[in-house]
Amino acid sequence: MALITFTSDFGLTDGYVGVVHGVIAGIAPDVRVLDLTHGVPPQDVRAGALALYAGCRWFPRGTIHLAVVDPGVGTARRALLLRTADAWYVGPDNGLFGLIAATEALLGCWELTNRRYWLAAVSATFHGRDIFGPAAAHLANGVLPEELGTPSAPPLTLPELRLLEVQAGETIGHVLAADHFGNLITNLRAAEHWERALASGAAHAWLGSQPLRPVRTYGEAAPGTLVLLAGSAGLLEIALPNGSAAATTGLGAGADVRLRLR
Amino acid sequence: MALITFTSDFGLTDGYVGVVHGVIAGIAPDVRVLDLTHGVPPQDVRAGALALYAGCRWFPRGTIHLAVVDPGVGTARRALLLRTADAWYVGPDNGLFGLIAATEALLGCWELTNRRYWLAAVSATFHGRDIFGPAAAHLANGVLPEELGTPSAPPLTLPELRLLEVQAGETIGHVLAADHFGNLITNLRAAEHWERALASGAAHAWLGSQPLRPVRTYGEAAPGTLVLLAGSAGLLEIALPNGSAAATTGLGAGADVRLRLR
Amino acid sequence: MALITFTSDFGLTDGYVGVVHGVIAGIAPDVRVLDLTHGVPPQDVRAGALALYAGCRWFPRGTIHLAVVDPGVGTARRALLLRTADAWYVGPDNGLFGLIAATEALLGCWELTNRRYWLAAVSATFHGRDIFGPAAAHLANGVLPEELGTPSAPPLTLPELRLLEVQAGETIGHVLAADHFGNLITNLRAAEHWERALASGAAHAWLGSQPLRPVRTYGEAAPGTLVLLAGSAGLLEIALPNGSAAATTGLGAGADVRLRLR
Repeated sequence: MALITFTSDFGLTDGYVGVVHGVIAGIAPDVRVLDLTHGVPPQDVRAGALALYAGCRWFPRGTIHLAVVDPGVGTARRALLLRTADAWYVGPDNGLFGLIAATEALLGCWELTNRRYWLAAVSATFHGRDIFGPAAAHLANGVLPEELGTPSAPPLTLPELRLLEVQAGETIGHVLAADHFGNLITNLRAAEHWERALASGAAHAWLGSQPLRPVRTYGEAAPGTLVLLAGSAGLLEIALPNGSAAATTGLGAGADVRLRLR
Repeated sequence: MALITFTSDFGLTDGYVGVVHGVIAGIAPDVRVLDLTHGVPPQDVRAGALALYAGCRWFPRGTIHLAVVDPGVGTARRALLLRTADAWYVGPDNGLFGLIAATEALLGCWELTNRRYWLAAVSATFHGRDIFGPAAAHLANGVLPEELGTPSAPPLTLPELRLLEVQAGETIGHVLAADHFGNLITNLRAAEHWERALASGAAHAWLGSQPLRPVRTYGEAAPGTLVLLAGSAGLLEIALPNGSAAATTGLGAGADVRLRLR
Repeated sequence: MALITFTSDFGLTDGYVGVVHGVIAGIAPDVRVLDLTHGVPPQDVRAGALALYAGCRWFPRGTIHLAVVDPGVGTARRALLLRTADAWYVGPDNGLFGLIAATEALLGCWELTNRRYWLAAVSATFHGRDIFGPAAAHLANGVLPEELGTPSAPPLTLPELRLLEVQAGETIGHVLAADHFGNLITNLRAAEHWERALASGAAHAWLGSQPLRPVRTYGEAAPGTLVLLAGSAGLLEIALPNGSAAATTGLGAGADVRLRLR
């Protein structure tokens, strides 16, 4: 049975998310829809791209990821359907799928052009309800991608979302976003070099000019110490155990993070 | 298979919403429950009525809409079940169903009086769990309305929630509520007159003394311009592209909106 | 069919909650997962224990309650599975299950030690995804507790979460937490003595030095009056009808509540 996830910047204070669930339930009554998050900051495509990248790998193979962070709704930006080996992606072409496209092989990319699979009346302001949600639902029902649209160029990427592998020597990255706990997520991918340097105590790191303590778990550092550790999405993140690194440092997206491994 | 939606002012910081889901699951294990929103401001019946009005039309025919914004819980206000051609509504009679009753033909209205379909112990503070949720679940299970209660007078309406059709000449409406994006939703229904005036450039509009630019999509106006456009619920709304109209103007529910069409 | 509830301090602004749903859907595709709440304040084990205690009784018999408020993630705190007559509980052993253990007979307690039922790679920061969610999903699939782990000592309790029965004469309790409406939940269990004193008008109560009006429903007191009433979890709570008792009094967890019954 098909599974759809749903990610957006709609928030949960209005009924927008619920309405998309309703539209999908009308088209594909047996399909399960799981919310990934609707707490992406309004119109923040980068944060949406990160949420999707961090989240999508934890769903079963074949999952359809519906994502709508869409400041350009009603303008000429394309409506896309992507296919990777593991999953499908449906949403606007504005960078939201940039991290997926940069880290996964695309097996197909279609522009959603077939109005037969949209709602009958398409508003200028809510394509999540009128185009993307219905397309995801029809896909879950077994409609083929070539029915939903036409083959298309790959999605936009965003330079500021480029991920870096941790290297021996110095690596300079930056903060991508802060999460709910005030952890600062960086664009540095924890890999073999990081694990080895951590084991040998040969890692040194700074957030701007503030030193960070490289650790494996929150519990390893004294309270009040800013730590750097591999977060749950495989990216290094800066945390303040029992506190908020974002609030305490006043830093956020764009701040420099330097890592030196011996 | 029956579908229940659930709208409330319970918020998601406590377990109140989850508990109602649990009670429904105990009575009607196979029924799907979709949250419309639980972000209605505490005890704000008008905002609840608007969320329900804007959201309910997007669900499949036969959906049961459970709505609980209930400052009078434990007092004598009636517990209601309504039927329209498309849907069922369950909740307190305090104006929450006023927009539905003003815009849809009621095919039936019952007061929920049969305690057999409530929880065994009814608290004075949480009828969503003890009365409304159980009634919606039993209805989804196929219990007839006349079993759940007794025929009753139609629901309360609230004068401040009266919707106005956009007219040729001048129409004066007001803001009903702000949404999560800071858009100000008005009580003006976009209809034929609006579409025609927009096409011919003959629409002029003001929020209090501030001019608004009538547009079809967010993307049409220069950044920093307050726009007026038909929102996703068919009501005109005031938006600031890439910003918050509510925060920028400092205006909210009750503010005057004037529209002049040539 | 098995039902899992999910309680955490993850919030809904990131994708952490959605990811756990995805992991469970991968292991147990037919199992329904209902969110109890994810609005427990970050790392506030006491508030999590209260949410779980107040919520769990409203779910069908046999429900599996997954709860993750886990400041000690990655340290030596145990991962537990508990069984009561009505339900199962899965989560970290840090006091989160203290109220359950203090008020229900435990029929079994296991430490989750069998890595075969965890994700293949276990992170140091997200055991909800890697250990607890998978264990709950396998349990829902019918895996036996003795397969998931080994019999273990009962869970930690927290002295500040001790509940008191309302007595004839004086009872001194305290505020456990504030909810979304600003109601202050106390550790005083409303029982027979309370009902009788209320009926005879012989109850007097104070929050610190401020008098409270004992009532049965919010509607009984004049606006602006702080009331004390039996809340939906069976605990006495302090409310300000149409307002927030927490914001108005400036008081919260730990504040004294005195009750005198004649």
